[in-house]
Amino acid sequence: MSFRNFKMVDYVVFGRGAFNQLDEILAPRRKADAPMIFLVDHFFQGKPLAERVPLRGKDEIIFADVTYEPKTTQVDALANSLKEKFGTVSGVIGIGGGSTMDLAKAVSLMMNNPGSSADYQGWDLVKQPGVYKAGIPTLSGTGAEVSRTTVLTGPTRKLGMNSDFTPFDQIVLDPELTKDAPVNQRFYTGMDCYIHCIESLEGTYLNEFSKSYGEKALQLCQKVFVDKDYWDDESDDQLMMASYAGGMSIAYSQVGVAHAVSYGLSYLLGTKHGIGNCIVMNYLEEYYPAGVKEFKYMVEKNKIEIPEGICKGLTDEQFDTMINVSLGMKPLWENALGKDWEKIMTREKLRKLYEKL
Amino acid sequence: MSFRNFKMVDYVVFGRGAFNQLDEILAPRRKADAPMIFLVDHFFQGKPLAERVPLRGKDEIIFADVTYEPKTTQVDALANSLKEKFGTVSGVIGIGGGSTMDLAKAVSLMMNNPGSSADYQGWDLVKQPGVYKAGIPTLSGTGAEVSRTTVLTGPTRKLGMNSDFTPFDQIVLDPELTKDAPVNQRFYTGMDCYIHCIESLEGTYLNEFSKSYGEKALQLCQKVFVDKDYWDDESDDQLMMASYAGGMSIAYSQVGVAHAVSYGLSYLLGTKHGIGNCIVMNYLEEYYPAGVKEFKYMVEKNKIEIPEGICKGLTDEQFDTMINVSLGMKPLWENALGKDWEKIMTREKLRKLYEKL
Repeated sequence: MSFRNFKMVDYVVFGRGAFNQLDEILAPRRKADAPMIFLVDHFFQGKPLAERVPLRGKDEIIFADVTYEPKTTQVDALANSLKEKFGTVSGVIGIGGGSTMDLAKAVSLMMNNPGSSADYQGWDLVKQPGVYKAGIPTLSGTGAEVSRTTVLTGPTRKLGMNSDFTPFDQIVLDPELTKDAPVNQRFYTGMDCYIHCIESLEGTYLNEFSKSYGEKALQLCQKVFVDKDYWDDESDDQLMMASYAGGMSIAYSQVGVAHAVSYGLSYLLGTKHGIGNCIVMNYLEEYYPAGVKEFKYMVEKNKIEIPEGICKGLTDEQFDTMINVSLGMKPLWENALGKDWEKIMTREKLRKLYEKL
Repeated sequence: MSFRNFKMVDYVVFGRGAFNQLDEILAPRRKADAPMIFLVDHFFQGKPLAERVPLRGKDEIIFADVTYEPKTTQVDALANSLKEKFGTVSGVIGIGGGSTMDLAKAVSLMMNNPGSSADYQGWDLVKQPGVYKAGIPTLSGTGAEVSRTTVLTGPTRKLGMNSDFTPFDQIVLDPELTKDAPVNQRFYTGMDCYIHCIESLEGTYLNEFSKSYGEKALQLCQKVFVDKDYWDDESDDQLMMASYAGGMSIAYSQVGVAHAVSYGLSYLLGTKHGIGNCIVMNYLEEYYPAGVKEFKYMVEKNKIEIPEGICKGLTDEQFDTMINVSLGMKPLWENALGKDWEKIMTREKLRKLYEKL
């Protein structure tokens, strides 16, 4: 098809305190005594949110270690242990940031698809719907709550299980849940949204659908990080909508230079997505002059420290690995620099960029 | 639930020429030899669009007379004739403006629900999903393509079949299809979106979800009808996105005075929704001063004539009918004027407003 037929999330509830409706939302999705599995970011272990999870019957909370971004091995281990213990489950509910969202989507899919999640890294390889899955973000910015992918690091590549079966059946957008996010983390994740908007709005792929969503997401990020001198409930509301709109805007757009370069960092060094994008954005004046200027203003205004010198002392071989991973993201480069991108972004030029980071 | 759990349309495709993908989109939805039924606005009878409908097997085009807004009797007659002729159908595809969208949704539901569509006018009375249904707007503004209702005039009331089964399974947003819409009609329908945004953004019900969508829809309407001196492809793109965003914004917001008063007109006089809202908006300076000023500017700039004097010569009984219908729309009035709306909008005051129209 010339235009992607975009699979939407089935149900969305947005509201301060909407998390309290979770029990009622899940009730009709319970199948006999098969449990609901709540995959919760380990950040919440021992915190009040964990107490509020509406457990019934054999339901379980599994605290997911998302220190590193999700791996196919982690997905497979989780799905296999659930199958062994319960046969099947009523659903998988992800509560956390983008990594937890992606983990929940992937585990849901692997409950009903044979083999390893690594077999499904790519486009439209998933053939069976997963079990019921819901996403409840506690950090705003990645847009993972509405995306049709789930970024996973596998044995040979970092790539998502992109399919129409991947989006959540339900998302619960409760801005109260993002209130206690660590300030740095909140900024990095918010910047994932901001940078993505700059990349897509200045890219060569775009239509009015993605433009409308991208412009709205960008405007909301600016309200939160540029216009305001303090953080309040409205900031949480707005950043949550920015994340949602940013995620929707991906339907007919593509990210660009920051994401392409950042993928190399995360592959080699395990740099997390949000902070990785920030590290790269700092040096992209040549490609996004206005966006980088505003980005630096936000960094300063919000008193954030962006790590420097993370590529210091890497070997030629390591640089080559990053360059290979990055240049492999062809659609991102084409979106950013046009059809002739290979003439513009040579290996030498990219090496120089990595050396600065 | 405190916050509505909003059922989204399942699939969205947006793009100039996306209509050409319809055959491919419908293929996996076909069940044995049960036909797809294309309900097409009678405006397209003999026009090129009708020739482009991808008919297969026993598929049929039914041209729907939408001179008046859809009635429950019309829905029942259509569904019954399809049942008689085919037993069941693979799907119902609506191609047209808001009335055609609503008709298609209602007929799809009545293929699988017993009795008359009048039995389901209200909230969550529909108990069975309909047959597959898709909406393809050829006019932008009503937001019917994403709403969970289908406004129908029944024997005792004008009210939708509001339910989670009501939204389309698929919408095809192809701005090329709105290109040849009559200028007046395009304006009235566009103003339905504009007025709705003014009403919801200035109302007392609102949260960041609906505000974000409402602001975007309003801004797109302004780009099209205020900022620009000509109509081009981009105008069609933008107005189509305005309609979509305006429809989404209804999730956690409500319309207001213009809609409440306009419902009385349409009940008594059959005034169509878009033009009815315009007739009323012309006299609402007291409630929406900035919006009405801008509305009048758009009317003048786009050289539109808004009918005047349509209530001239009505009897007291007729005025009473309109007043009763209008004051029955309690949530609309409460949204516009607050909890104490009944003290503000008295029968006398509303009568005076109707007399001006």
